[in-house]
Amino acid sequence: MILPRNENELIKLLTGKWRYSPKVVCGVGDDCAVIAGASPGRYVLLKTDAIVEGRHFTAEAAPAKIGHKAIARVISDFAAMGGIPQFAVVTLFIPPSFNLKRLTAIYAGMDKTARAYGMNLVGGETTRATDFALNIAAIGEADKRHLTLRSTAKTGDLIFVTGSLGGSIKGKHLSFTPRLNEAKWLVRHFKPTAMMDLSDGLGEDLPRLASASGLSYQIDPGNIPRQRGASLDEALSDGEDYELLFTLPPSKSQNLQKAWKDIYQKLRLTCIGKMGSNKQSSTTLSHGFDHLRYK
Amino acid sequence: MILPRNENELIKLLTGKWRYSPKVVCGVGDDCAVIAGASPGRYVLLKTDAIVEGRHFTAEAAPAKIGHKAIARVISDFAAMGGIPQFAVVTLFIPPSFNLKRLTAIYAGMDKTARAYGMNLVGGETTRATDFALNIAAIGEADKRHLTLRSTAKTGDLIFVTGSLGGSIKGKHLSFTPRLNEAKWLVRHFKPTAMMDLSDGLGEDLPRLASASGLSYQIDPGNIPRQRGASLDEALSDGEDYELLFTLPPSKSQNLQKAWKDIYQKLRLTCIGKMGSNKQSSTTLSHGFDHLRYK
Repeated sequence: MILPRNENELIKLLTGKWRYSPKVVCGVGDDCAVIAGASPGRYVLLKTDAIVEGRHFTAEAAPAKIGHKAIARVISDFAAMGGIPQFAVVTLFIPPSFNLKRLTAIYAGMDKTARAYGMNLVGGETTRATDFALNIAAIGEADKRHLTLRSTAKTGDLIFVTGSLGGSIKGKHLSFTPRLNEAKWLVRHFKPTAMMDLSDGLGEDLPRLASASGLSYQIDPGNIPRQRGASLDEALSDGEDYELLFTLPPSKSQNLQKAWKDIYQKLRLTCIGKMGSNKQSSTTLSHGFDHLRYK
Repeated sequence: MILPRNENELIKLLTGKWRYSPKVVCGVGDDCAVIAGASPGRYVLLKTDAIVEGRHFTAEAAPAKIGHKAIARVISDFAAMGGIPQFAVVTLFIPPSFNLKRLTAIYAGMDKTARAYGMNLVGGETTRATDFALNIAAIGEADKRHLTLRSTAKTGDLIFVTGSLGGSIKGKHLSFTPRLNEAKWLVRHFKPTAMMDLSDGLGEDLPRLASASGLSYQIDPGNIPRQRGASLDEALSDGEDYELLFTLPPSKSQNLQKAWKDIYQKLRLTCIGKMGSNKQSSTTLSHGFDHLRYK
């Protein structure tokens, strides 16, 4: 029996029998795990994520950017829940020959990005391996009023994305800005009904949000904000955009768009469509990036 | 510039400049990171750890045991701090061809061991990689009165180890019992001055405890409890014993040994020596297992 070629199916097979303690607000299936109980009014968020050389970055990538990417991906996941990252530990997978100068520059890059977003690196582990890889595990928190899942969109909600999609391989995948501040502002002032970050491409991630919410979606592909030079297919499928995808009742849309323009002049915010009921059919999208599919 | 061949030196080079927030009770250098502030009277513990095929287990190992090992190593680290593990997330590093039946059995093994020790698997991530590997990141807690670091041994304290050392490669490294219950009992009833788990062999780990505490140690190698068939060198160097190493004032020794015999009839507890001042010299030990040294 070989592996399913789809990551969603594999995760379901591996974790479908897990039973959560009553403290678990959200387990497998969202950007972070969410746990209740430590302090009133707040949830604990827990995340693990890895980047692997040859897959998430090349041997030629600037070391500081590799460090940035490792940490910023995790920050993006906390942002997507309406939370903040606080403390992280690093597992270093290290091949037999590796340049120390490069490694220290990667670690400096991790530390710099962590600090820039209020996060503190506090420990880790090392092991030998064939691939060079970094696993980041982080804890953080979210105000209970601000926690935003991907599974809670409502029929009729409008769908928004920040920034421009596609073409991340040209450099953005290593130097992107995780939308932590924007997400903090959003959950405080406009409380999206659902949110996630775009890591695998809108064509993969929007169906995930819709499926988690038990809904369909109708979008106008012509509305999808594209990076300069990116085709529609690339905007849907390249992945690694690390932008926010969120939903909101139409009644809030006008105020949001006005307030957004005032505060985030340089970052686009685009309404790309709306959520439909589970009886409607979704717009057909080409597929996004699946980590288990080789290109 | 190539890598230092010693794991301790490498970690110092990579993390020596990290600056911790005031909430960080213990960063790099102990079995878990320790964070204050979430709830009064308790600390949050955070740990990351990976096992890699070909290094921590072979392709022929029983899948359930691979899963057990991944989780039990982490439980052992929480035990070593006087804490308890609560929630964990798994990063799966998966090579292009991998048997799904084996993988589901590994995941079932992880879940079974996690539950057996009151821990809940709550999420994860998957990525393609050359090596099959599992990274476990876990959070848990420790009562402030029970937290036990490796850096707080006192001159004159007696040194104890649980169980028998050496020969783990014959099978114990895959099927060991993490000493969570024993450690809970110890910190409640006898509060060791310092504690850690033996993952890299007494010959590597005792010097770490002594160095962290700024002390020396004098042990009688003849007293080291050995697995049947294990030589002294193997007991010192094989590693992966996952037993507890701890220190205690001599005044508590007799009561401890009596109480231990009453409650843990089947698990040895051995006094192997005592901590000396930083002006004394330590007993010479052959080296333990260093994860960055190829054998």
